[in-house]
Formats: sequence, C-alpha cells, structure tokens
Amino acid sequence: MTERKVTAELAEWVVGLKGSDIPESVRAEGVRTFVNWLGCAVGGADHETADAALRAVMPFSGQRTSTVIGRTEKLDALHAALLNGITSHVLDYDDTHLKTIIHPAGPIASALMALAETRPMSGYDFLTALVIGVEVECRIGNAVYPDHYDRGWHITGTAGVFGAAAAVGHVIGLNKQQMQWALGLAATQSSGLREMFGTMTKSFHPGRAAQNGMFAALMAEAGYDSSEQGIEAKRGWANVASTKQDYDEILGELGTRWEAALNSYKPFACGIVIHPTIDGCQQIREEIGARVADIASVHLRAHPLVLELTGKKTPRTGLEGKFSVYHSAACALLRGDGAPTAFTDEVVTLPEIIDLRDRITAEANPACHEASVDITVTFKDGTTLEKHVERAIGSLERPLSNEQIETKFVNQAKLVVGEEITRNLLALAWKIEELNPADIAAASVPAATRAVE
Amino acid sequence: MTERKVTAELAEWVVGLKGSDIPESVRAEGVRTFVNWLGCAVGGADHETADAALRAVMPFSGQRTSTVIGRTEKLDALHAALLNGITSHVLDYDDTHLKTIIHPAGPIASALMALAETRPMSGYDFLTALVIGVEVECRIGNAVYPDHYDRGWHITGTAGVFGAAAAVGHVIGLNKQQMQWALGLAATQSSGLREMFGTMTKSFHPGRAAQNGMFAALMAEAGYDSSEQGIEAKRGWANVASTKQDYDEILGELGTRWEAALNSYKPFACGIVIHPTIDGCQQIREEIGARVADIASVHLRAHPLVLELTGKKTPRTGLEGKFSVYHSAACALLRGDGAPTAFTDEVVTLPEIIDLRDRITAEANPACHEASVDITVTFKDGTTLEKHVERAIGSLERPLSNEQIETKFVNQAKLVVGEEITRNLLALAWKIEELNPADIAAASVPAATRAVE
Repeated sequence: MTERKVTAELAEWVVGLKGSDIPESVRAEGVRTFVNWLGCAVGGADHETADAALRAVMPFSGQRTSTVIGRTEKLDALHAALLNGITSHVLDYDDTHLKTIIHPAGPIASALMALAETRPMSGYDFLTALVIGVEVECRIGNAVYPDHYDRGWHITGTAGVFGAAAAVGHVIGLNKQQMQWALGLAATQSSGLREMFGTMTKSFHPGRAAQNGMFAALMAEAGYDSSEQGIEAKRGWANVASTKQDYDEILGELGTRWEAALNSYKPFACGIVIHPTIDGCQQIREEIGARVADIASVHLRAHPLVLELTGKKTPRTGLEGKFSVYHSAACALLRGDGAPTAFTDEVVTLPEIIDLRDRITAEANPACHEASVDITVTFKDGTTLEKHVERAIGSLERPLSNEQIETKFVNQAKLVVGEEITRNLLALAWKIEELNPADIAAASVPAATRAVE
Repeated sequence: MTERKVTAELAEWVVGLKGSDIPESVRAEGVRTFVNWLGCAVGGADHETADAALRAVMPFSGQRTSTVIGRTEKLDALHAALLNGITSHVLDYDDTHLKTIIHPAGPIASALMALAETRPMSGYDFLTALVIGVEVECRIGNAVYPDHYDRGWHITGTAGVFGAAAAVGHVIGLNKQQMQWALGLAATQSSGLREMFGTMTKSFHPGRAAQNGMFAALMAEAGYDSSEQGIEAKRGWANVASTKQDYDEILGELGTRWEAALNSYKPFACGIVIHPTIDGCQQIREEIGARVADIASVHLRAHPLVLELTGKKTPRTGLEGKFSVYHSAACALLRGDGAPTAFTDEVVTLPEIIDLRDRITAEANPACHEASVDITVTFKDGTTLEKHVERAIGSLERPLSNEQIETKFVNQAKLVVGEEITRNLLALAWKIEELNPADIAAASVPAATRAVE
C-alpha cells in the first residue's frame, strides 16, 4: 500500500495550476479536443438516444440556463451536462486516449460548457479547465488500466467523473480541501459497466460522469464534506474498483508529462479496430477511380480481434453496420465514406453496397497487430492490388490534421444543424480561448429541432 | 457462471406482483418500516448535512413539487429523493436488514415519497412498492454479501439503487422489458464506498441511490434502453462488483420467503455494535434507581469489534460520541438516553457525563458474540452488580414494539418540528395504506425552517 497522499497531492496541483503553466502545444491539443468534441455533440444531437433522455429529464429540469448543444431545448446545467455527454458519444465518433481507451472530452467538456452558461467564465479559463480535467481523468485511468477495464468497468465513465470534478472544481475556485472532497464525491459516484455496450446506456456513461463530476464539485463548494483520501485509502476507489494501483501514473511528472497531449480523434464513426480497413479501402478508391466498378472480390487479413468484434456478415441496421468490417469496407470502396452517413439504416441496405459486401472475405491473422490490415482487391480481369496499412489515420503516428478535423466536423454537424450554422460554429470553435464559451453554445442552436414527444 | 436469466426473472416478478400477493404480516412490517423511516427523515431534517446539500441543489431544482420531509423547502422529485435519503440516514438511526447491514428504507421510501407528490399514487400502492423495493434490494444484497461489502462497497448505496428502481418502476407500471432496462440502468449507476464513513458522504449514498434508482425507472419509461441482463451478465454488476454471486438468493422462493419481513429498527442513534451496552446500562438504571449516584466504576466485556469501532475514550463532539462505548454507557446510566439527544456536542461535554465516563473501562473478549455484552457495576460500598445482555433490544429476537417505534419517532421528530406536528404525523404514518402519501409529506412540514444560507 502506498504511503503517498494521492488525493491530497493531486488536489493541490489542480487548484494551484494556472493557464500559463500549460505548454502552448498542450493547449493547442486542447483546442483540437474541444473542436472535435463540439462537432460530435452536434452530430449526435438528433439521435433517438438524445430524444429518449430528453423525454425523461424535461419534467425535472431546473432553470433552463444551458444549451443542449445542436438542439433548441435548454436545461439546467446538470441535466445539460448529461445530455451533451450522451450526444457527444452516441455516434462512437469522439476522441480516444489510446493508452486507456478513455474517450476524454465527453465527461469534461460537457460539464464545463453547461456550467459556462450559468456561471460565466472566459474561454481561456474554459480551455485551462478542459486540459486539467482530461489530464486528471487519463492519469487516474492509467493508474488502474488495464485491470480495471478488464474487470468490466467502462473507464470513460469511471475515470471521467474524476476529470469532470477536477475541471469544474478548478474553474469555480475550490480550495485544496474542497477539491479533495470533490474527488471523494467523484470516487463514490464512479460507475458504468461495459455490459451496457450496444445499448443507449453506453453513452449514458460519459453523460452521467459529466453530471456527477460537476455535482461533486458543487457539493464540495457548498461545504458537503467527504473523505480526503478517496482515491488511495484502503477502502478508496482504486483499491475497491481495481486490482492494479500505480499511483506514479497519477502523481509522476505532474506538469511536465501531459496525457492531455496524447488525445486522438476518430476519423470514422465506429469502433477503432475497423479503422485500418476503412483507411486502406479509401486509399484504394483514390488510386483506382472508376475501376471500383470492376472489383470482383476483396480479401482482408487482420488481427483476430477485428473479426471477433466486427464480424457481422449481414448487418440489417446502421448500428449493426458499425460492427461489420464487410459493410465498412464496401462503403469505403464505393462511397469513400466512414462518417456517420456510412452507418445509416438506408445505406446499410442499399443493393450496391450489399452486392459488394457479399464479395468481401476476411481472415484472422494473429501476426497482424491490432492497428494494421492487409487488403487484396481482385478485379474482374484477374489482376490484383495489394494494400498494407501499418497504422490507420487518426492514430498517434498519423494524427488527423486540423483540416481533417474540420472536414469531420462539417460532415457530421451539417446533417443536424445545416451548413451555415456548422461553418459559423466551426470558426468560433477554433477561437475558444478568445471567446465566451456561452456564445459558442448559443451558436450551435438550429432554427428548429424536431420536438421531443 | 449461471445460465439463469436473473434480471429477466426478477423483472417479471416485480411487474406482475399485486399488493394482495404480499402476506398481511409482511405488509404490516412494511408499515413499521415506513413509520420508522419517516421519523428518521424528520429527525435528521435540520442536520447541517441537509443544509449543505440544499445549498448545492437549490439553484438546479426543477419544479418544486416534492417536500423535503420535515422542512419548508420543496424540490423537484429527483432532488427531493436525494435529500430525504440523506436526512433519513444522517443520524445513524434508521432500519437495518441484519443479514447484509443494508439500511433498507432510505433508498426506497425516499424515492417513492418524492414521486408520490408529482405522480399521485394511493397509500396502498405506495406500501406495495415499498415492500417490493426492500425485497429486491435485500435479495440483491444477499447475493453478493459479504464479499461485496468486504471489498469496500457501501451496500446500502450499491444495492439500494436496484430497490429504488424496482419500487418506482413497479408503481409507474413499467412492462417487463422496461423493468429490465431500469435494473440495467440501476446496475450501471451502482456505487458508494465505505471509505466515506465518518463524513457527510456516507448519507449521500442512500440519497443518491434513491435519486438514481428513480431516474433509472423514469429513463426506462421514456424508452431509454439498456442491457437486459445487467445483474448476471459476464460483465454485469454482480461479476464486476463482487467475487460472490449467489443468484438463488435473488430468485429463490420469490413471493414466499420475504426479506422485507426481516427488517429491524435501531433503538439507539449510533452504530449497532454499541447497542447491547446501552441496552444493558438502561436496564441497570431502571433496577438501581437513585443508586446511580453511588456507582464507583463500570467494567465492560465485549466483542473485540466493539472496541475497534467505538473505542474513543474522550469524544469531543456529538458525532465522536457515537463512536465511544464509554460515553454511550455513561449517558445510558445517568440519563437513560440512547436517542439523538445523547449524541449532541453539549451532552458529550457535560461534567457529570465525563466524570462517570472516565470511570468506565472495557476489555475485548473474543468469546463474546457481537450482539452481547457483560457489564459489571461496582458501587462505592464495594458491592457489585452483574448484567449480561445476550441480544440487544432492536434485534430480530427482541424487536422494537410498535409503542417503542412510536417513542423513537416522537423523541427525535419533536426536536425538529415540535410535538404537535410530530403527534399528528405519527398518527397519519400508521395509516399510510389508507391515505394519500402526499398528504403525509405535507403534514411533516414545520411552520418555519431555519433558512439555508
């Protein structure tokens, strides 16, 4: 057992940090994290999952201060944090801290944005808090990963609540003891099971982490006390919820090693294991142009996990399409698409997609690593084309450029709020550090949303 | 691993049960559970813990439909459930399911009462739902106790959320599939760490369980789906949060074996291990009358756990007094008191209490079981008196009578809302099955509460 006062030392760092203590390069990654989050929140705003959640929370909402990003409804800040956490995750299109598979921004940015509309803060302070929240969340995740995740906890929810508490606690100016209480209140609310994957409840996790983390900070501010060693105590969170506890991951090189700089952004709206295949098929499409019509068959060789997780031969719905490497490859070859538009009920059942999909085969190759794939295309004239993808676009080795993040933003958001609002919102998003965050939230609102029944 | 569909079978039982399926004796215990809960919620209503929670939630409350029991403030039903769960537990004076140390009523009754003020239900249906909730909560607790508790989970929170979801889901008429979703949403919110004991966050647990369980049912009603095997799946709650899973405890003899009939009610406002000592000292006081003034010394022989948990020799505050077997014995001998009035800052520092307390010694006797004590009183004339308590009052062997529950109710509630409101409320509480629960909530409101800053 450690003798280090993990919660106390972490709290001290969080409350003492100034925006200027964060290196420019880390802040720049924070801006990319914010832009990517905002595009995903708009992109998921009209999903039926958001409609269902809104039906439940509307009768209980307090003063409607805070925007449901990309919709016309407003809610109190706690419920808005929940909704924005849900929408930003529901398309499986958000950001990824690859060391822990945490999707960092959802719990943090969703809480901060909802709060910013009722307790004004500068965009500069917003971004500082966002970076701090991501840092706390990913460091706490590192301390228990992979044991905690393997046990069955959805780490985006369980670690996310700490990040949200730290981010909100920082921006509202908690003192060190209050921050310890906030982390304790976060620890005691940490939850979310991987069993929920494949249901609406998966995206409930980052939403609830945002809401509960914010609530932890607000309770601490109000003088509601808690354990001051909620993370590391004998019966604290790390010991109860994990068999691994590496506290150096939490406290080591604080302020010099930045997990927040290691965020990545999904180029495709599906699980990360299909990404190399979609990437390779898009490259092939670029190279062969009209010869796409001459493809006779396609053969994939990938890590066994790819087929285990995404081996659906005949998906019937858009959601099932996300778990079909065959559909994903066909759609990338025929349409160049891996965005949410590739995973609609309509596209999954298009005859030309099904026709090509049925001519795609795949085999598990244990020699492949998870991030690579080998693709063989055979044309009708018998000629073949080989494509090897070593690291997919979106990985740390091949990060999305700012332009690619913009394209992703526009392609998903315009379907929900239209091109004009999307372009304006995107321009504002890059300038978060100079603007009032509340103005950005307001700029996400469409002229009208389909009303929730 | 079990092949039984635990969540599905439990959900089917919960949705199908009628009030008349519950034996009269079990319903009668349910009424006692309700009366005891209501007295505790009033008794804790003016605690500083409630004040702090109210400061945090007031700015976010929705439509103020629901009473904070024993206070003038109203909140939306979700936040009222949180507050009532906190107040009913904060004095450590509530009910106990002795097999699991779950305090059953807090998560369930707090949710139902808050809901009843916005979605009217009969008192008969309220009581049916209360019994169902307690039954589900305690059965789920049995399935994982003691491993889950030993691991560090505060089982009143972690199992309570299931009970609240089942109770609310039953009373709002969820169908079987929706009930499975509600249990899944409960599973994924199940949380609460024992590390928080000794802080305000301990009573946050039953409060949050009430609020989250209610929310789980409301989300399911709105069509928010979830896993349909949230309890027993490979990565479901029981496997993730416990090393023991005995599903017969959940499904065995449903409708014939009633855990809800095994509830017990604390006669004293402190941890259950001191109860035999207080009981014995009160008996001695009755027997010796004025000779209390002639006591020279007192010696206690009790289970080692008693001294481990409550061995504080010189408590300085009322809260510390709850963890001092010495103070508790002195107060029982001199004042006959084990109610919340025995654990105030004032009483703990009274010179005559301290004088006797300092002449009380204790030794751990591993031969004693946890529920027993041996007390030796030595008088100034050298004579001695021996008292053995085999089972304390309040245990299943010596349950509180209805009259004793009434005395407990009156003695704590009158300090908060006055004697007149207390007597009227108590009379209504016993008639819960014939009344509108909302009228009972309204009858708990005092003329004025000290305003929350």
